[in-house]
Amino acid sequence: MVGAVVKSSWRLGDLAQSLGLELVGNPNLEVHSLATLGSAGSGQLSFLANPMYRRQLDSTAATAVIINPQFASDCPVAALVADNPYLMYAKVSHFFDRRPRPDCGVHPSAYVATDAVLGAGCRIGPMAVIESGAVLADNVEVGAGAVVGANCSIGANTTLHANVTFYHGVKTGDRCTFHSGVVVGADGFGFANDQGQWQKIAQVGAVSIGNDVEVGANTTIDRGAIQDTIIGNGVILDNQIQIAHNVEIGECTAIAGCTGIAGSTKIGKYCTIAGAVGIAGHLEITDRVHLTMRSAITKSITEPGSYSSGTAMSTTSLWRKNAARFRQLDEMARKISRLEKLLKSQQTSDQ
Amino acid sequence: MVGAVVKSSWRLGDLAQSLGLELVGNPNLEVHSLATLGSAGSGQLSFLANPMYRRQLDSTAATAVIINPQFASDCPVAALVADNPYLMYAKVSHFFDRRPRPDCGVHPSAYVATDAVLGAGCRIGPMAVIESGAVLADNVEVGAGAVVGANCSIGANTTLHANVTFYHGVKTGDRCTFHSGVVVGADGFGFANDQGQWQKIAQVGAVSIGNDVEVGANTTIDRGAIQDTIIGNGVILDNQIQIAHNVEIGECTAIAGCTGIAGSTKIGKYCTIAGAVGIAGHLEITDRVHLTMRSAITKSITEPGSYSSGTAMSTTSLWRKNAARFRQLDEMARKISRLEKLLKSQQTSDQ
Amino acid sequence: MVGAVVKSSWRLGDLAQSLGLELVGNPNLEVHSLATLGSAGSGQLSFLANPMYRRQLDSTAATAVIINPQFASDCPVAALVADNPYLMYAKVSHFFDRRPRPDCGVHPSAYVATDAVLGAGCRIGPMAVIESGAVLADNVEVGAGAVVGANCSIGANTTLHANVTFYHGVKTGDRCTFHSGVVVGADGFGFANDQGQWQKIAQVGAVSIGNDVEVGANTTIDRGAIQDTIIGNGVILDNQIQIAHNVEIGECTAIAGCTGIAGSTKIGKYCTIAGAVGIAGHLEITDRVHLTMRSAITKSITEPGSYSSGTAMSTTSLWRKNAARFRQLDEMARKISRLEKLLKSQQTSDQ
Repeated sequence: MVGAVVKSSWRLGDLAQSLGLELVGNPNLEVHSLATLGSAGSGQLSFLANPMYRRQLDSTAATAVIINPQFASDCPVAALVADNPYLMYAKVSHFFDRRPRPDCGVHPSAYVATDAVLGAGCRIGPMAVIESGAVLADNVEVGAGAVVGANCSIGANTTLHANVTFYHGVKTGDRCTFHSGVVVGADGFGFANDQGQWQKIAQVGAVSIGNDVEVGANTTIDRGAIQDTIIGNGVILDNQIQIAHNVEIGECTAIAGCTGIAGSTKIGKYCTIAGAVGIAGHLEITDRVHLTMRSAITKSITEPGSYSSGTAMSTTSLWRKNAARFRQLDEMARKISRLEKLLKSQQTSDQ
Repeated sequence: MVGAVVKSSWRLGDLAQSLGLELVGNPNLEVHSLATLGSAGSGQLSFLANPMYRRQLDSTAATAVIINPQFASDCPVAALVADNPYLMYAKVSHFFDRRPRPDCGVHPSAYVATDAVLGAGCRIGPMAVIESGAVLADNVEVGAGAVVGANCSIGANTTLHANVTFYHGVKTGDRCTFHSGVVVGADGFGFANDQGQWQKIAQVGAVSIGNDVEVGANTTIDRGAIQDTIIGNGVILDNQIQIAHNVEIGECTAIAGCTGIAGSTKIGKYCTIAGAVGIAGHLEITDRVHLTMRSAITKSITEPGSYSSGTAMSTTSLWRKNAARFRQLDEMARKISRLEKLLKSQQTSDQ
Repeated sequence: MVGAVVKSSWRLGDLAQSLGLELVGNPNLEVHSLATLGSAGSGQLSFLANPMYRRQLDSTAATAVIINPQFASDCPVAALVADNPYLMYAKVSHFFDRRPRPDCGVHPSAYVATDAVLGAGCRIGPMAVIESGAVLADNVEVGAGAVVGANCSIGANTTLHANVTFYHGVKTGDRCTFHSGVVVGADGFGFANDQGQWQKIAQVGAVSIGNDVEVGANTTIDRGAIQDTIIGNGVILDNQIQIAHNVEIGECTAIAGCTGIAGSTKIGKYCTIAGAVGIAGHLEITDRVHLTMRSAITKSITEPGSYSSGTAMSTTSLWRKNAARFRQLDEMARKISRLEKLLKSQQTSDQ
């Protein structure tokens, strides 16, 4: 969270005030770190969001617990009362995030092209590279070894962690985070076939990324063939995701790790796509679609809702028998039809 | 395309001459960039390859269109007439590719071992590392932060984009492209089991890559256990592909993103492997095989053709019912057989 | 193998002594490299582990073969007799591994924070970055361009290959290997939903890795939300694996490439997980479980054994028919039940 103040410990009274929460307990108690209900000790702050963990409340050794009004009176220690304890935990978590950041300014070992423009408060880590014509707004952080290609435009308060790579011409909004190993703007996979040989198509589009986007480690987002690949505001992407050229992802859509989206597919807003999903190219997925883990999506989806494919797991010995039968599924269906007809004709002839 | 001249704009007459195409229109008109038929404006060059987009031709605002002879007379603007407009678009796209490249020579911040050999026209970017004994042919480009391991041999006109990593002893042909985050020559996954503990097997082979190979962002190609992992001429690999040790891939085979190929498998020539396919180890896939998206391949394929596995998507509620039945598939097949026998015996006894 | 001596060639007598094996043949013969039985020539050492290759023994041109007692008398060349030839090959392979390593000490182009601590014999490659407060034990190797985040703790004899990235606070044991492109300690994918917007949860845990762990190229291991993500002793991970926050992996478990494990799942000891498996979050997989290639695991597994999901491959034309029927599977099962009942009632009425 931009601007969160990180201190070595927090008075409960100050926390309550910062978060706008009611405190039931001694405002002078202090907490220095976060912990789960079951593992928390003295000086730690915990939360109760999932009723499954209700029973851990009675014996918690936390100094304070973020808790909803329903359970607050059962809390044996100080309570920070919140209607949505999980959301409040998300907000307070940044008060205890002690990630060290590169110093303000440009590390002496970094390379910044003479015509690159850096806003106030930028932090450029060791061995980072900012190529010619790149423009970084205020408070941009570029980690060790990260590379910002020529003519990139990076919005304010955006962070590129160590060893991120941006090709030329990538544009991002404000408050984005790119984790290590992310590659944005590599060539899309575009080739024309010339009697068996592949003739490469230059990928002259770029990548355009909105505000408040998070991109997980080793995720790749290719540049567009002609127009840009587009990632909307508030999109969150987990690790090892592949976004092909000219994909468009709508606002606030969340995608879990290892998912791949083929070229020119458009994903709507407020979708949630689980891990290792595969989505074919040139499809349209409407808003508010949920795709379950490892689904293979080969057709456009026009109605909001949840979609799946695949088979459920079983022991390998049972699976082998069933998987072999899958090859006979159409034949089985035809046999059933024949049996139905046969029985029907029997019944008819019996009458 | 090696040697493509990039200018700020092109006269149509010059383009037609460079590409060997007939021009129907004013040769003095100029185009400065590419666009799709639907979005093109004045000064832009477009193409009509897919008949699906034929209707966009009538209203296009492009200055010129690459088009096949069949539609040329319908073209409301200048026409560059080509038998294969998509292939011609591929070729012309490089005339408009304005990717900035590192300057010729070695950037002052790069490290080149004293006994590495660099051909004429090499471009070594900021923070790049060329280790001892590496030999780079003419016009090799090594992007910012890329690492060329000891004793590598890189063919002429090959490009390693920023933050590519080559381990020692990797050999590539000419005109190859390796995108950011690619790792070539990491250890194959070879271990002997010693009463539950894993004893690592040193991977003493290397990786041998042909000419005109493209490797997408964050793809990994492991070094061989004893002999080399081999990538044939003209192979194109998309992003996030895993090629295990001692895999061999035949000429001009194309593989889409997120596919994984396990150790020692041999893939033939002119295959097309779609996204997120998994291929088990020690298999042989013959030439001209097509594998559809997310197929799981666990047996060798000896006949050219198209192969698939998986299930089609449906709503999650319907899928749950069907996936549960998958576990009973063998039992269902046996029931059908029993019913068939029963009915047959009935009919026999009825006669 | 730590401490393996690599020489340009080895006397068979010395090899036999180093490995504790019986030599049948001339101890003064020398071998300079490894080869498979079929490809070996003079001066090469081979092994016979898989009986499938027994027939290659008769015509091998190897100078010596590691072989079990059963086949030793058939060996036409010098024999190094071992009860487990594959394991012995694993051990001897390191004697022939000629991977160049960075020189001892810190390369002049590397950056080491003034308050980082380096043990004896550390090798820090060109452009590597060791951030503030990091502690490296003896003989740690950090490859070119690799980044060790602030306050990391790296055990003795551990190797980070080129362009590895460790975020702050990562802890590893001794004798670990991290291949290029690995990212350890990036943020887990933790967000609270606030009326459609995603509110990021700071990931304040770290990653704790045991001894003798190997992590393949471009694999990602996220830091914990509150507590640490934990990788046990002797775990081996292949390339392009995604390990989400707060996953725990038990001792000596092996995981093949492209597998993804979602948050907070616990994997037992001595498991073997094949390639491209997907495991959902918050599950427990007990010890000694085997998961076959591309399985989707959505429930905890409490019994050791082998588990699978998916369908077997077929030609695409056959697959299309069967995959379409998958959507009718529940309906088919109901039809079978109806037929069974109908026939049963017929038989009853017939009696």
